Amino acid sequence: MPRLVPRRGFPQREFVDRLDNAQRVMGESGVDVLLLTTEAEVRYFSGFHTAFWQSPTRPWFLLVPRSGQPVAVIPAIGAACMGQTWVSDIRTWASPCPSDEGVSLLVDALRELAGTKGNIGLQQGPGTHLRMPLDDFQRVRQALPDSHWHDTTALLEALRAIKSPLEIEKIRHVCQAASEAFQRLPDEITPGMTDIDLFRRFRLSCLESGVDEVSYLVGGVGNGGYADIIAPPTGHRLAFGDVMMLDTGCTYDGYFCDFDRNFALGEADGATREAYQRVWEATETGLEAVRPGASCSEVFEHMQRVLTSQEVPPAGRNSVGRLGHGLGMQLTEPPSLMADDYCVLRPNMVMTLEPGFAYAPGRLMVHEENLVVTEDGYELLSVRAANTLPVVDWSS
Amino acid sequence: MPRLVPRRGFPQREFVDRLDNAQRVMGESGVDVLLLTTEAEVRYFSGFHTAFWQSPTRPWFLLVPRSGQPVAVIPAIGAACMGQTWVSDIRTWASPCPSDEGVSLLVDALRELAGTKGNIGLQQGPGTHLRMPLDDFQRVRQALPDSHWHDTTALLEALRAIKSPLEIEKIRHVCQAASEAFQRLPDEITPGMTDIDLFRRFRLSCLESGVDEVSYLVGGVGNGGYADIIAPPTGHRLAFGDVMMLDTGCTYDGYFCDFDRNFALGEADGATREAYQRVWEATETGLEAVRPGASCSEVFEHMQRVLTSQEVPPAGRNSVGRLGHGLGMQLTEPPSLMADDYCVLRPNMVMTLEPGFAYAPGRLMVHEENLVVTEDGYELLSVRAANTLPVVDWSS
Repeated sequence: MPRLVPRRGFPQREFVDRLDNAQRVMGESGVDVLLLTTEAEVRYFSGFHTAFWQSPTRPWFLLVPRSGQPVAVIPAIGAACMGQTWVSDIRTWASPCPSDEGVSLLVDALRELAGTKGNIGLQQGPGTHLRMPLDDFQRVRQALPDSHWHDTTALLEALRAIKSPLEIEKIRHVCQAASEAFQRLPDEITPGMTDIDLFRRFRLSCLESGVDEVSYLVGGVGNGGYADIIAPPTGHRLAFGDVMMLDTGCTYDGYFCDFDRNFALGEADGATREAYQRVWEATETGLEAVRPGASCSEVFEHMQRVLTSQEVPPAGRNSVGRLGHGLGMQLTEPPSLMADDYCVLRPNMVMTLEPGFAYAPGRLMVHEENLVVTEDGYELLSVRAANTLPVVDWSS
Repeated sequence: MPRLVPRRGFPQREFVDRLDNAQRVMGESGVDVLLLTTEAEVRYFSGFHTAFWQSPTRPWFLLVPRSGQPVAVIPAIGAACMGQTWVSDIRTWASPCPSDEGVSLLVDALRELAGTKGNIGLQQGPGTHLRMPLDDFQRVRQALPDSHWHDTTALLEALRAIKSPLEIEKIRHVCQAASEAFQRLPDEITPGMTDIDLFRRFRLSCLESGVDEVSYLVGGVGNGGYADIIAPPTGHRLAFGDVMMLDTGCTYDGYFCDFDRNFALGEADGATREAYQRVWEATETGLEAVRPGASCSEVFEHMQRVLTSQEVPPAGRNSVGRLGHGLGMQLTEPPSLMADDYCVLRPNMVMTLEPGFAYAPGRLMVHEENLVVTEDGYELLSVRAANTLPVVDWSS
């Protein structure tokens, strides 16, 4: 099934829009400049796309002023790559340079863009971190003693939560590619193989389906059910009666899918099949609740009611802590589908629905689909899982 | 060429040794407890191994006291996975919980292990960051107003720099697997393919060679030479006269290789072939200088002399900023091969040699090998690159 492969990158218009939206909100909230240090945020405003973030050695800074263009303050090794983006003001230093790892350049740029008494926006809240050495951050603060530091976690979350049509196209593409790989998975399973072999086969299959990277792959497997949903494979030899779940976050052009699929080998007991149906139904109910104006809490409550509609053992609390979340440049993004997240769904938000529960001691069942909120409901991005637990033929 | 695949994980002895070594140094420097928040550090002391770190939502904490066992303070979703490690004191909270994202539990544990006036070790220096929300860190500090915060960057670097035989075995394995994939690369290149296709083929090839993940893959390609060494592929259609470089950090059981290979398609001009020979020679000279007792600065100077032995255009400064670095659980680790890094090489340090320079405006040449320092020199872990630039047949 050949699919149209979305064009890579974005036209400059996309970045102009992102900047305009940010600057409007910055104006409203009195933030003079955003200081960005993390991969997704730097890429969001610049288009700077590199795997080099995996090296922890060097910090990278992007400054977004309340008016005017973004300024990149980055190690020289990134100058060529940043030079390919729409950012034209690129200031570099020869890095590594532990004695001054961009601190002076950063302080100068902050002073230039926000003055000595400006309001500097920094992500300080839930789900964020500062990707630079703490000591260096202290130096920056000391060099700007009259600056004010504003938490911009919510500001940036709100901007990034609404995806553009081009972003959605990339996510749809990677969801479809991973769906195809999942559909082929039963054919990849052969008696005697280990979960390590299966993970490798699934990675190959995803790449063959057109994803760029299998950035995230975890799973659970166990006879009669699985107990751990975030572990790497252990070398377990697949056997009749195993129940397994693979959960993948593949990327295309820097955008993620995030969903899983369950399979039983040969047979599954009644409790397992019922648990599967329960999470499938919870997803169905969640989908029905998804529409602009619905809150995350509301969608959560709908799904939770299905999960708890029959007696569940005391262990039934869902250790995932939520029943879905945002999705995009990161594997998980705000908001969360949970009781006390009152974020309201709006068109072009991309979300996962991810119901799960422990249906017996040491036996979990999780399920996940990806969707985009539309004007009047939702569009599924992943190919909907079967409504009964797929059982792989194990007679051979 | 079947290789013996190293056993996954580590025997408990390995973690006992790591803890003993840390506690000895903590005793010497008066640190009561290490607060660890980042993937490699948490994994180093616990064995906790999951791709789930890619989700930015939740913080994870491991506390290493000056005496006694490590304590994990983690989201409930990780309890089963952490339960498989040697860590037995696992304290969890239902996460996400933005109002108290582990902060109370963490404060209690710090108080228990270090008292109210204890010395808390935290990585604050070069190449580190704090992986938790800044606001939450402020809360922790305010809840422990009489605690002292010690920078433990150097302490942890020194511990992790010396690899155990089992760690080296894993790195050797992934270096060999990636070397095999690089050796097959010329056969994967076909006229008309794009660099995107080639990246995908190379990823598949690495997986088939036995790596777990192709975590890092960047490259450069251009007619007559490449200008950018950290970019993803762009869709460039491979053509006669192209020079290209692929640089990969694959992993096996959580341990990295990090090296690159250069190829020319059909032909390369004299300047490019000479540049290749220069970086190959610089590596050779670097290898000769590697032995216990040699400093990073010394190895750097040997290599740098080769790179600058003939006239190099003004653009010849190496934007990478160093000529190699440590390697292990992370793609890049301390120390750095650069003029002012006086770290002394010791047996069982795993390093990359990575000479590079601009041999003409907009034309870079980089080269990289991986090695482990032995009692009397080094052992190459990657299969040494050819001493002349490989030219792929492009007559078809």
